[in-house]
Amino acid sequence: MNPFVHSEAQRDSLDVVLVSPRNPLNIGAAARAMANFGFSRLTVVAPFAPTWREARSAIGAPEVLLKAVETATLAEAVADATLVVGTGTLTYRKAEQPRVVLPLLAPLVSQELASCGRVAAVFGSEKHGLTRQDLSFCHILVEIPTDPRQPSMNLGQAVAVCLYELASRVFSTPAALEAKTEALTASSGRLELLAGLVEEAMRAAGYSPRSMQAANQHDLRLMLRRMSLSEQDVQRILGVFRRILWRLKWLP
Amino acid sequence: MNPFVHSEAQRDSLDVVLVSPRNPLNIGAAARAMANFGFSRLTVVAPFAPTWREARSAIGAPEVLLKAVETATLAEAVADATLVVGTGTLTYRKAEQPRVVLPLLAPLVSQELASCGRVAAVFGSEKHGLTRQDLSFCHILVEIPTDPRQPSMNLGQAVAVCLYELASRVFSTPAALEAKTEALTASSGRLELLAGLVEEAMRAAGYSPRSMQAANQHDLRLMLRRMSLSEQDVQRILGVFRRILWRLKWLP
Repeated sequence: MNPFVHSEAQRDSLDVVLVSPRNPLNIGAAARAMANFGFSRLTVVAPFAPTWREARSAIGAPEVLLKAVETATLAEAVADATLVVGTGTLTYRKAEQPRVVLPLLAPLVSQELASCGRVAAVFGSEKHGLTRQDLSFCHILVEIPTDPRQPSMNLGQAVAVCLYELASRVFSTPAALEAKTEALTASSGRLELLAGLVEEAMRAAGYSPRSMQAANQHDLRLMLRRMSLSEQDVQRILGVFRRILWRLKWLP
Repeated sequence: MNPFVHSEAQRDSLDVVLVSPRNPLNIGAAARAMANFGFSRLTVVAPFAPTWREARSAIGAPEVLLKAVETATLAEAVADATLVVGTGTLTYRKAEQPRVVLPLLAPLVSQELASCGRVAAVFGSEKHGLTRQDLSFCHILVEIPTDPRQPSMNLGQAVAVCLYELASRVFSTPAALEAKTEALTASSGRLELLAGLVEEAMRAAGYSPRSMQAANQHDLRLMLRRMSLSEQDVQRILGVFRRILWRLKWLP
C-alpha cells in the first residue's frame, strides 16, 4: 500500500514554481523530485531559453517537464494561488514577511487546502535565490533549517526536501505511513512457544538444577524479547531446538 | 539563532555510508547535503576509482569529501555502528528486516543515540540501490515514501531528504525550530491603537452616523485582525491616517 493519500485532485492544488533557473540539470532534478513525490504542476518563470530547451529535450525528461507551464513573470505564475510560499535562507537578509521553518510548515498548507485554496511553492535561481521583489509576492517565507556554516542548498535537493516534507506531512495520513511500517517481528505467542521448547531442551540436557528453573525461565523470556526476532527467525530456531531435543531424548 | 542543537559530538554519532557510488556529481551532492545539515562523517565503500578521484578533486569539493573514509567492504564501514539503517524502496523486492518509512524513523534513531549508540545511514549505488547482501548488514530498512509510479530517487536528493529528516527531527529540539519561526505580526495593542486612529478619522470625515459607530468599531477590529498586519504595516498605516486626520481637522 502506498503511504500517499492518492487524491490527485488535492495534489493538483500545489504548484511548484521555479524562478529563472539557470542549470538544465537542476530543472531536471526538480522535475524528478516532483514525480517522486507525486506532484505534477510545474511552472517555470522567465527561464534562460537555451537552458529551458536543453532541460526539456533531455533523454528521459519526466512528463512533468513536458507539461510544464512557462510564464514571463512571477506575478502570472502565482496569480491563482491563495498561499504563496517562498523558499530560501535568510542568512544574508532580513525577512519582510512571516517566516516558518520547513518542519513546521505542514499545518499552514493543510489549512489552506482545507479551505479550498491553492498553494504555490516558489524556488529562486541557483545563484541568488529569490530576490526581494520575488519575495514581495509571497505570503510566507519557508526556510529549510540548514547549518549556518553551509546554508545554501542545491536547487534540486531543496525542491526534493520541500516536496518530501509536504508529501509526508500534508498529503499522507499517519495511518497510511504506519501501514508501510512493518515490524516483521514474531508475536508474543510464538516467542512463548519457542521459550517452552528451549526450556525443554535445557531440562533434557540437564542444564539447570530444579531450583534455578523459574529464574532461568524468566531470563529466557526477557532475552527472547530483547532479540526482536522475526517470525522467520523463530521458525528457524524452533527447527534447531526440535532437532536438538530429538537427539537429547532419543539418543543414548 | 540556528534551529540545530549544535552538539557536534551528537552529530558525529551519525555516519553516512555510500556503497559503490558511480557518479562523481552524486557523491558531491551527497557531501553537500551533509554539509547543509551539519553532518561530517562520510564513508565510501568500494568506490569506482576514477569516480572517486574525480569527486574529490572537483573545484569547491566540500571538506566532508576530503575527510571521507574509504573502505573495501560495507562490513568494515558499519563495524562500529549499533544501528545500521539501510535506505531504499521495496518496489521490486521483499523486506527481510523491519522496515519503517522515513517520517517515522526519528524516534528509533533518537533512542539509539540516547543509549550512546552509533548510527549508520547506508545508501546504495545509483543503479541498483542496496543489494540483498548489503541489506543483510542493516538492522532496519528505511523507505522514503515516494510515488509508486516513480519510486526511485536520485542519490543526492535521497541523501538530502534523509539528512533533512534526521537534522530536523532528531538533532533539533521543537523549541529551537519554533525560535526560528517568527510571525512578525503586530501585537493586539498596536492594532487597537490603529483602530482608534481609523475611527477618529472616520468620525472626523463624518463617515458613519452615531448609531452605527459601535457596529463599525466591531467590524473594524475584526478586519484588522484578519489582515495579519506586520508591525511595519501598522507603522505605515498609522502614518497615513495621522496625516489624513491632520488634514481633516485643520484644513477648511
